[in-house]
Amino acid sequence: MQLHHHPFCPHSRLVRLSLGEMGIEPELIEERVWERRPEFLRLDPAGTTPVMIDDNEMVVPGPVVITEYLDETRGRRLSGWFNDKFFAEVSEPLVREKVYKRYMPREAGGGPPDMAVIRAARSNIRYHLHYIGWLLKARNWLAGDRLTYADLAAAAHISCVDYLGDVPWNEDEAAKIWYARIKSRPAFRPLLALTMAGMPPAPCYADLDF
Amino acid sequence: MQLHHHPFCPHSRLVRLSLGEMGIEPELIEERVWERRPEFLRLDPAGTTPVMIDDNEMVVPGPVVITEYLDETRGRRLSGWFNDKFFAEVSEPLVREKVYKRYMPREAGGGPPDMAVIRAARSNIRYHLHYIGWLLKARNWLAGDRLTYADLAAAAHISCVDYLGDVPWNEDEAAKIWYARIKSRPAFRPLLALTMAGMPPAPCYADLDF
Repeated sequence: MQLHHHPFCPHSRLVRLSLGEMGIEPELIEERVWERRPEFLRLDPAGTTPVMIDDNEMVVPGPVVITEYLDETRGRRLSGWFNDKFFAEVSEPLVREKVYKRYMPREAGGGPPDMAVIRAARSNIRYHLHYIGWLLKARNWLAGDRLTYADLAAAAHISCVDYLGDVPWNEDEAAKIWYARIKSRPAFRPLLALTMAGMPPAPCYADLDF
Repeated sequence: MQLHHHPFCPHSRLVRLSLGEMGIEPELIEERVWERRPEFLRLDPAGTTPVMIDDNEMVVPGPVVITEYLDETRGRRLSGWFNDKFFAEVSEPLVREKVYKRYMPREAGGGPPDMAVIRAARSNIRYHLHYIGWLLKARNWLAGDRLTYADLAAAAHISCVDYLGDVPWNEDEAAKIWYARIKSRPAFRPLLALTMAGMPPAPCYADLDF
């Protein structure tokens, strides 16, 4: 990845900080925009810094478009992992079988849980925990050095499963430490306070030192 | 703001966490989606949680659209404050007068700095620092409980001005503490390491305990 920048262009600095928070080190090309270098103007006729060239040769100009592009291509992939894949393989089947089916009328799909589905989801969650642990080897949070929607998404899905007592926390120490950290944020309190009549949470659910 | 949700819908939980991180407490309306409540289906014919109703009556469905909408309406306003307003009133004039004009040929606008412009920018930065301090009264970071692009944008612009020695840090203690925190992040190191030949940084520039 390349970044055409100037060391004193504040918009270039914003992009450098954003890349840094994601653990990405771009190749830096200094532009003195007043020289109107033809190669630079061919990249972006506006001739202002910053301009980023992604590793797939995509030219992305300006701080707002660059940060949106980074969110879109880097950040959202991880949020999608949890919102789509973890949901399909773990949180949706467990919540459906153990919670929703208790309240749904039979004609809407209610009834006793399907134990085969529950066993499959309990098996699936293990590789998701290891994936979280693997991501955390290189950074403080799932998508880099700052907490992003990827962390909130992963924690939201895991919290549903944790209520049901189906997170094997002994499987991955790094994932457990990460969850303890995110669980202690003020935004998490309303989720930890909720209980469902006739279905108390697992003992570790609201415990910040589980 | 209203949130139609279910306590065990992980996507609803993601939205609750995201709102919580922004310090927003929505009114919660529990939906049992399998009941297909007509009022809920009128809001969103897909009939799935979460659905958010913003305070301007905008109906926003689904976790991805909701988090994008929150970024767009809440987060980006603050980033824009620094990228547009702080830039126009402080960082652009100071960098132009004190840095760029040294290197630009006279026909491109180079020459000695205009002291009236510099004085105006130095006066403008004071109310921006107080604004930062005011934002931090209610939260840890500028847009809520987590570091966002608003913080990175503000810090990027301020860092240019700080190199030039033009940030009156004694004006606002909260803003100073915030900048010390963001300055100590690994992503900041490359910016603090840079120096310009013939134009050394202000003594406090790279100092983490300024």
